[in-house]
Amino acid sequence: MNEDYKNIPDIVIGRLPLYLRALQYMLLENHFVTSSKELSERLGISAAQIRKDLSQFGEFGKQGTGYHVEFLITKLKQIMHIDTTWDVIIVGAGDIGHGIARYPGFKNQGFRVTKVFDNNPEKIGQKIGDFIVEDSAKMANAIREANIKIAMIAVPASQAQQVADILVNAGIKAILNYAPITLNLPAGIKIQYIDPVVHLQRMTFYLE
Amino acid sequence: MNEDYKNIPDIVIGRLPLYLRALQYMLLENHFVTSSKELSERLGISAAQIRKDLSQFGEFGKQGTGYHVEFLITKLKQIMHIDTTWDVIIVGAGDIGHGIARYPGFKNQGFRVTKVFDNNPEKIGQKIGDFIVEDSAKMANAIREANIKIAMIAVPASQAQQVADILVNAGIKAILNYAPITLNLPAGIKIQYIDPVVHLQRMTFYLE
Repeated sequence: MNEDYKNIPDIVIGRLPLYLRALQYMLLENHFVTSSKELSERLGISAAQIRKDLSQFGEFGKQGTGYHVEFLITKLKQIMHIDTTWDVIIVGAGDIGHGIARYPGFKNQGFRVTKVFDNNPEKIGQKIGDFIVEDSAKMANAIREANIKIAMIAVPASQAQQVADILVNAGIKAILNYAPITLNLPAGIKIQYIDPVVHLQRMTFYLE
Repeated sequence: MNEDYKNIPDIVIGRLPLYLRALQYMLLENHFVTSSKELSERLGISAAQIRKDLSQFGEFGKQGTGYHVEFLITKLKQIMHIDTTWDVIIVGAGDIGHGIARYPGFKNQGFRVTKVFDNNPEKIGQKIGDFIVEDSAKMANAIREANIKIAMIAVPASQAQQVADILVNAGIKAILNYAPITLNLPAGIKIQYIDPVVHLQRMTFYLE
């Protein structure tokens, strides 16, 4: 991480992908200049917050002329370290594993799935799109050899902690967990959860 | 929505499911009383923020004695309107649709998947766990008849907007979208996105 950025709160970092996503959609719409007000309308985050967040990383816009969409995309990608492509492995070749192995949305977003593992003999050797499911007994070595830093866990909840321990031991630094369980991880390992329940519960507040 | 709560920012509402989740794990661990400090350590949200968020909904804790875990869970469920069970439909019986149809995490969290739809003749009639995939041509009627308010979209990006329009027309008020596309929806319809890219991009900032 850039030392200049080390005091920026994690909640600000968490908004950067949303800004990036909104800017990328603008570019698709041939929309080349924008403002914090316009971003605010797209994202439901206040314009003042957006200006404050972005200003922590530098001077990206000018009073009155706004932000250049393409330039801001480039800068955000640099800040988030996705101006390169990260290799990512998937553990678990069930429904969710299949879905993310075939997910078309990683392209040009900084990520490339390189391997899919499972411990079930019936699944090992199976084809998923361009992948052949590999034996998870070989996972740790594969991670070390290719210096993989990011993994997605899509195994049942009962196996997720054990898988996470193996991943971290082999050198994984960031985990995206689809299993409905909170993982215990050493300090310094980043974790994100994909949990449809949390998203659904965010909306029911507003329903009668 | 409770009129008393109508000025509470959406970002506060968004943290309530995280508080609930942390409290539920505490209860599983037979941990019956907690504090904003302890919640803070679990969630990485400041104790002051947690106290401020919760105080917007009432007096749930006492200075010095903390929060009663079970009581706070009950209150949060009432506030989020998940003291009842919402019927939810899934549109799209591909990998992701299969995964969420079989997802064990909805139970006791306020949601129950009741139907799965697809427009592909090869998928209609297929079994997914306890469900038989139904023809999405019958979707609008099914939503109206059962007064369904919540849907999950798990179709390809190219079909997601069309599906969303049908859902909203039929009375759906909240959508959880797995398709990698932003949906245009009328005001008042709630939308949440499940996007692994956003979660991965939240973590790479911290990686070398």
